Amino acid sequence: MPAAIETFVAQNRNRLLAELKEFLRIPSISTLPQHRADVEQAASFVAKSLATAGMENVEVIPTGGHPLVYADWLHAPGKPVVLCYGHYDVQPADPLELWTSPPFEPTERGGNLYARGTADDKGQMYTHIKAVEALRSLRGTLPVNLKFLIEGEEEIGGASIAGYVAAHPEKLRADVALVSDTAMYAEGLPTLCIGLRGLIYAEVEATGPSRDLHSGLYGGAAPNAVYGLVELLAKAKDANGVIQIPGIYDGVEEPAAAELASWGQLPFREERFLAAEVGSTELTGEPGRSVLERVWSRPTFEVHGIAGGFTGAGSKTVIPAKATAKVSFRLVPRQDPDKAVEAFREWVRKHTPKGIRTEVRILNASGALVVNPDHPAIHAAARAFEEVFGKPTVFIRSGGSIPVVGDFSRHLGIPTVLMGFGLPDDGLHSPNEKFSLQNYYQGIVTVANFFDRYAA
Amino acid sequence: MPAAIETFVAQNRNRLLAELKEFLRIPSISTLPQHRADVEQAASFVAKSLATAGMENVEVIPTGGHPLVYADWLHAPGKPVVLCYGHYDVQPADPLELWTSPPFEPTERGGNLYARGTADDKGQMYTHIKAVEALRSLRGTLPVNLKFLIEGEEEIGGASIAGYVAAHPEKLRADVALVSDTAMYAEGLPTLCIGLRGLIYAEVEATGPSRDLHSGLYGGAAPNAVYGLVELLAKAKDANGVIQIPGIYDGVEEPAAAELASWGQLPFREERFLAAEVGSTELTGEPGRSVLERVWSRPTFEVHGIAGGFTGAGSKTVIPAKATAKVSFRLVPRQDPDKAVEAFREWVRKHTPKGIRTEVRILNASGALVVNPDHPAIHAAARAFEEVFGKPTVFIRSGGSIPVVGDFSRHLGIPTVLMGFGLPDDGLHSPNEKFSLQNYYQGIVTVANFFDRYAA
Repeated sequence: MPAAIETFVAQNRNRLLAELKEFLRIPSISTLPQHRADVEQAASFVAKSLATAGMENVEVIPTGGHPLVYADWLHAPGKPVVLCYGHYDVQPADPLELWTSPPFEPTERGGNLYARGTADDKGQMYTHIKAVEALRSLRGTLPVNLKFLIEGEEEIGGASIAGYVAAHPEKLRADVALVSDTAMYAEGLPTLCIGLRGLIYAEVEATGPSRDLHSGLYGGAAPNAVYGLVELLAKAKDANGVIQIPGIYDGVEEPAAAELASWGQLPFREERFLAAEVGSTELTGEPGRSVLERVWSRPTFEVHGIAGGFTGAGSKTVIPAKATAKVSFRLVPRQDPDKAVEAFREWVRKHTPKGIRTEVRILNASGALVVNPDHPAIHAAARAFEEVFGKPTVFIRSGGSIPVVGDFSRHLGIPTVLMGFGLPDDGLHSPNEKFSLQNYYQGIVTVANFFDRYAA
Repeated sequence: MPAAIETFVAQNRNRLLAELKEFLRIPSISTLPQHRADVEQAASFVAKSLATAGMENVEVIPTGGHPLVYADWLHAPGKPVVLCYGHYDVQPADPLELWTSPPFEPTERGGNLYARGTADDKGQMYTHIKAVEALRSLRGTLPVNLKFLIEGEEEIGGASIAGYVAAHPEKLRADVALVSDTAMYAEGLPTLCIGLRGLIYAEVEATGPSRDLHSGLYGGAAPNAVYGLVELLAKAKDANGVIQIPGIYDGVEEPAAAELASWGQLPFREERFLAAEVGSTELTGEPGRSVLERVWSRPTFEVHGIAGGFTGAGSKTVIPAKATAKVSFRLVPRQDPDKAVEAFREWVRKHTPKGIRTEVRILNASGALVVNPDHPAIHAAARAFEEVFGKPTVFIRSGGSIPVVGDFSRHLGIPTVLMGFGLPDDGLHSPNEKFSLQNYYQGIVTVANFFDRYAA
């Protein structure tokens, strides 16, 4: 029982909160070039925090994109090595007008801390650093060997860390990776995630006439880039959300009967999911599939944004020359990302409407992952989690994508413990993102307890 | 033969050009609130020009929107009254980066004057004012009675002039209206337009989830506002451009056989239209209809702009909560605009996808018009045009919409002479809008000659 850690966290609450707030005030939006200096500052902040916690060999590693932060502590001979991963970059905060408090001024309300990046992922990754700090403060040593590798490009595809992991397998050698970038299934319910969807992210640009044309003079004969793109995208799914692109479902693996049965036992309430989380009139998706199947074990196609033509106030009667959409596929186990990209490109070529030219730009492509629930680290994590939260640990999947977990598997040959302290309504990528303060403090205790249990 | 007018124009070329340039430098973009003062300045400029030309009772008339400018000269007893109409407002100039010279710095190149509003409609309406000035300078009098009514809301639906014409039929009483806001069929070819399409302009807003959602966590089950809008809009037309909205083709009148035959005689070259004007790989539109039918006598549905979700640089994996499109229908003779609006609303209600809510906002709705080619003013205009340009006048339609022509018909009971001096490649509503300087000068002579011929 991690009583000493619990006491340490209780006695240091104010400081642990103040330091997290300082981290959250840095608007480290990796996708926006104007925030480059903020991203650098967030990397320095992480490096400083690691050094303060007692980690050694702290490095800020320049890359072609945003820096990586590395640190290690390797003084527990005979004990396993845990590679802790997290990301210090965040999503853009727009639409700003929908935030109740400013996205980069962390604000406490109702036991939660509101700011961009609280749950995804600054607050969660900080539990690892603070667990190290707590253990070192109390014992002067750590129960396992630790390496940290923290990136600043998770929200834009993680190209730099992918290259780094591929190039440095010896430096990063470990027995298991620890990632806290997922959510608990429900409040107070210890949860380990053992499956993630992959992601293909692409831009599709459509070109019609060589310039915007007057719709009165040319309407009826000239191709319209916005309408061409609309026609193309509408063919990607049927009215039920089943993807119509040939080859996209190739290789899709159905979950085992036992896993499906365990999902049926989770406290999922569709009405609550619809009303409190999604907030629309009804859900969509493949007929004959439960909601959890649809978001965890089925591929999807989404349009994230679209722009073209005149979108200012009032009216302008143009036939637009150009239009662009940002789209993605979520992939599930056994789907080949390269084949899915090729299937998409081929489908776009074939279905581009008359008079329209299209270009597809792939921003990233990574496959899905599943973790073996019988690995000793997963057992230790489940037990550590249960002890702190007082309930049996459940095993779920996530519909999201953490490409680095695939890199750890491929290049280091290690599984990943996905021990998330977020909650389903944290609003990741949305206005009013939050993180439960209770989960922040208990997360620190749980991570420290996991190190102890895994060492034993 | 208008030799004296031709001489006057030739002797005053530099001044006539300098004054037009001064007018064009005012960025009177009616749809953008930040240009309100520029719009007012353009109204004052018009009023001053009318007074200088010798028109009387010049008024700048405030409205709920942008001001109207009125003036008259009524000292030709027994002669007809011509109501000259034009608009001093212009379209927005974006995308700015595609202009060779700045949109509000009029620039001469290759016999053309480049600037926003040169052809649509400042340069053209200025021919009327300068014709008056020429006649008054030469003779001290005018051959017909004249009224001018110039508006500043043509590009945003013309609500104020519509109300004014309806409320002041006695003040505006005339025998015919004269509008120069259309194009000649080809360079050097005198052209009268005897048909215009109507316009319904609308915004469609789609709402899915109550906030932008993480596409990994919700993708597969949550409705997507952008995709919902894409699905809806794609159903509006088939692959050939035939509108699929029930009731939209109700009442559509086919052109008379003689009119269709005359279109076949026009120097239309589809390859040139595709390559030099549209600039795409191929044309679209209803099968079995000529290009001229498609743009002159067939209804259309166009999407002018679309926006929703994340459209910045890089990637963001949201399921967007909102998306908006600007759309329009062009209407042809005998279509009822109110019934078309109702058909559209009903269709949107019926085809809004699962989980999506939609709202339709109608910005304006006006029907199509045809003018009787046997009216004496049309005969006089055709002859005046022929005399100046040295070729027989052709009769065409335009696919564009000039709602005020409908108001003149409905409230004043008069036909309109659509005597345009633009050219098909003037780039109305596009970057690098231009007006032929030759047509500007000859337009002044033609308008003066029309007044003479119509008086005779």
